[in-house]
Amino acid sequence: VTAVSEALLKCDGERLWASLMRMAKIGATEKGGVCRLTATDLDREARDLFARWCEEAGCTVKIDRLGNMFARRPGRDASRFPIALGSHLDSQPTGGKFDGALGVLAGLEAVRTLNHHNIETAAAIEVVNWTNEEGSRFAPPMTSSGAYAGVFTVDYAESRADTDGRTLGEEMRRIGYAGPEDVGAHRLGAYLELHIEQGPVLEAERKLVGIVTGGQAQRWYEATVVGQEAHAGPTPMDRRRDALVAAARMVEAVNAIGHEFQPGACATVGHLQVHPNSRNVVPGRVFFAVDFRHPDDAVLSEMDTALRERAAAVAAASGVALDLDCIWHCPPTRFDAECIDAVRSAARDLGLPAREMISGAGHDAIYVAKAAPTAMIFVPCRDGISHNEAEYASPEACAAGCDVLLNAALRLAGRD
Amino acid sequence: VTAVSEALLKCDGERLWASLMRMAKIGATEKGGVCRLTATDLDREARDLFARWCEEAGCTVKIDRLGNMFARRPGRDASRFPIALGSHLDSQPTGGKFDGALGVLAGLEAVRTLNHHNIETAAAIEVVNWTNEEGSRFAPPMTSSGAYAGVFTVDYAESRADTDGRTLGEEMRRIGYAGPEDVGAHRLGAYLELHIEQGPVLEAERKLVGIVTGGQAQRWYEATVVGQEAHAGPTPMDRRRDALVAAARMVEAVNAIGHEFQPGACATVGHLQVHPNSRNVVPGRVFFAVDFRHPDDAVLSEMDTALRERAAAVAAASGVALDLDCIWHCPPTRFDAECIDAVRSAARDLGLPAREMISGAGHDAIYVAKAAPTAMIFVPCRDGISHNEAEYASPEACAAGCDVLLNAALRLAGRD
Repeated sequence: VTAVSEALLKCDGERLWASLMRMAKIGATEKGGVCRLTATDLDREARDLFARWCEEAGCTVKIDRLGNMFARRPGRDASRFPIALGSHLDSQPTGGKFDGALGVLAGLEAVRTLNHHNIETAAAIEVVNWTNEEGSRFAPPMTSSGAYAGVFTVDYAESRADTDGRTLGEEMRRIGYAGPEDVGAHRLGAYLELHIEQGPVLEAERKLVGIVTGGQAQRWYEATVVGQEAHAGPTPMDRRRDALVAAARMVEAVNAIGHEFQPGACATVGHLQVHPNSRNVVPGRVFFAVDFRHPDDAVLSEMDTALRERAAAVAAASGVALDLDCIWHCPPTRFDAECIDAVRSAARDLGLPAREMISGAGHDAIYVAKAAPTAMIFVPCRDGISHNEAEYASPEACAAGCDVLLNAALRLAGRD
Repeated sequence: VTAVSEALLKCDGERLWASLMRMAKIGATEKGGVCRLTATDLDREARDLFARWCEEAGCTVKIDRLGNMFARRPGRDASRFPIALGSHLDSQPTGGKFDGALGVLAGLEAVRTLNHHNIETAAAIEVVNWTNEEGSRFAPPMTSSGAYAGVFTVDYAESRADTDGRTLGEEMRRIGYAGPEDVGAHRLGAYLELHIEQGPVLEAERKLVGIVTGGQAQRWYEATVVGQEAHAGPTPMDRRRDALVAAARMVEAVNAIGHEFQPGACATVGHLQVHPNSRNVVPGRVFFAVDFRHPDDAVLSEMDTALRERAAAVAAASGVALDLDCIWHCPPTRFDAECIDAVRSAARDLGLPAREMISGAGHDAIYVAKAAPTAMIFVPCRDGISHNEAEYASPEACAAGCDVLLNAALRLAGRD
């Protein structure tokens, strides 16, 4: 037994799993998933349970105006900013048990393990629950980590409305989780987020740990194609300006661009709406959204150019008008070298099969990285499926990720 | 003035136009169109107005179980079956003022003109409003003329459900238009339907009248493409089974088939729905409908084969599952020679520029032709546009069509 291995701690994987399964009962769906939308009564119930668990583990919970929760296990050196471990407790409408909850409850498990071993850290350890990461009820996603990092104003975040017109601010007050702390005033020494990969790479390569070095650059577009609505029977083919035929060619072009800019590109049309969407009417208008991602912003710009050129060419050839706007551009994120190194070292010391990777998805960590040194840890999920009730990560994967989180945090917080 | 021209009657074009504009207020849309879906409160309002107008014109209105309305102006010879003039008062969701309403209100205008001239006919004249011609709320279209002609059972027609699960039968009872008469028991001596062309041919050839000799063969399909729902960020392009990309290729194949089987073919995907339709989720499932038409049923069968082969090939190449069903097949219709001749003679006697043609669209007349001698009359509509709020037929075209309808009906009903 070497000095290094002596220094390693292991979490209680069964306790972590039990906490995950208990939390998943709040908003449990018939198909084994979770529906726990932000600022609903179920969200309150999840927060109440999380706060009680944290207090039982000796933490003090502070809550800011947007409901971001910081549960603090004090450290020896009060002059140091805390090392925060967290994620989110809200879910997609047909979400799974692990997306978000794993990162929060693994943070709690880290605290419980430190308590069990009576370990004092130099910096405090905090477990964080960020409000409204999914953006399913209140768009955009990562609202409150974004406000924490200054990407959005607090007023903007509070004024986000659901489809019934209720705002995030009033709903957080309603459930009693609009706290007294100023958003962003609570500074962090570092932030680590454990998350399921939500993709198939780790599983395919039989790795248990992803050392996440940053996030992709991303562009979102909205496109409206306008042709001529006409009766499907008496309108000869050569007189049509069919908006759906043109949009179908653009969907194909988006997909082709994704394949051409490998490695690294992702290109998706996930949302498309046909007007008037009647089976015997030649479609007059189609709206669709494009999601482009690439680790390299320069390549993303080339993809942007390709999209604009090809969509315009399709529109011209199809006799339709096209309105194409880039509505959001997020440059790539590079996580903090020391935080990445803490994760890398922990995985190596634990002897876990690991690889470095870029996060394809958005996460609270992407925004928090603007305000504090940050890194992420991924664990595999079955078939890469997420945002889906069938989402599943094994107890072994969850425990392995938690062990990396705990030991990376210890390295950053300082021990003895 | 010859005997022939003496016998000719002319309708009151201004009165017809005023009735069309009054009816178009029920369900009027901001863009000048009409949204009057079957068995809605607006449909009830339109039926109430039509019934009142018919009663004011001395007619007796009978209603069958599916809400088909027959407004009778008695004839001299009670042993003869009535000569019916009609169409439908329901509309597309973004429909126009003329599709359907013109045929019904021109029938009413014919009755009003006969009243004005105190003309007694041998056979009775009836004005008919068929329920749910469009099929927009309850598929399939022409539900109730189809049930009248024995194409569908009444149970089938009544059990058609909208997207909220409400059935045509219960909704017709709700609006008070499920009548006491047995569907199909009310026999007709002949049926004439005036309709806008809904295509560009008459306008392009500067004809005022289309003598419609029959209808195209038609096939409707429903397709469900099932891929794998996945997160748009972390799912590499080469691991995707994107249902929308596959569906887009099938839309393109449908369009190509329409172009290949010229002259005469029409091929349309008018309806398409993406699931879950979220901009950062790779679509897991797409549903779409295909509308195929051709005057020759043998060619339509070749189109059917081409669709099945190409859609299956796209599914295999795209890694998705495909469920493709032909849900409706309507063979070509040949209208009744005597009815066609009555229309042809009326147009000639009135000195109106006319041409013979095949109906590209489905109409109640296509089904009624199975139960009674039938023909149709088309008038031009601007730019061939229909199933569109911009749909427009001139007062002159409407009046010319009504004159042909009236005089053809007189010829069939017998006068003096």
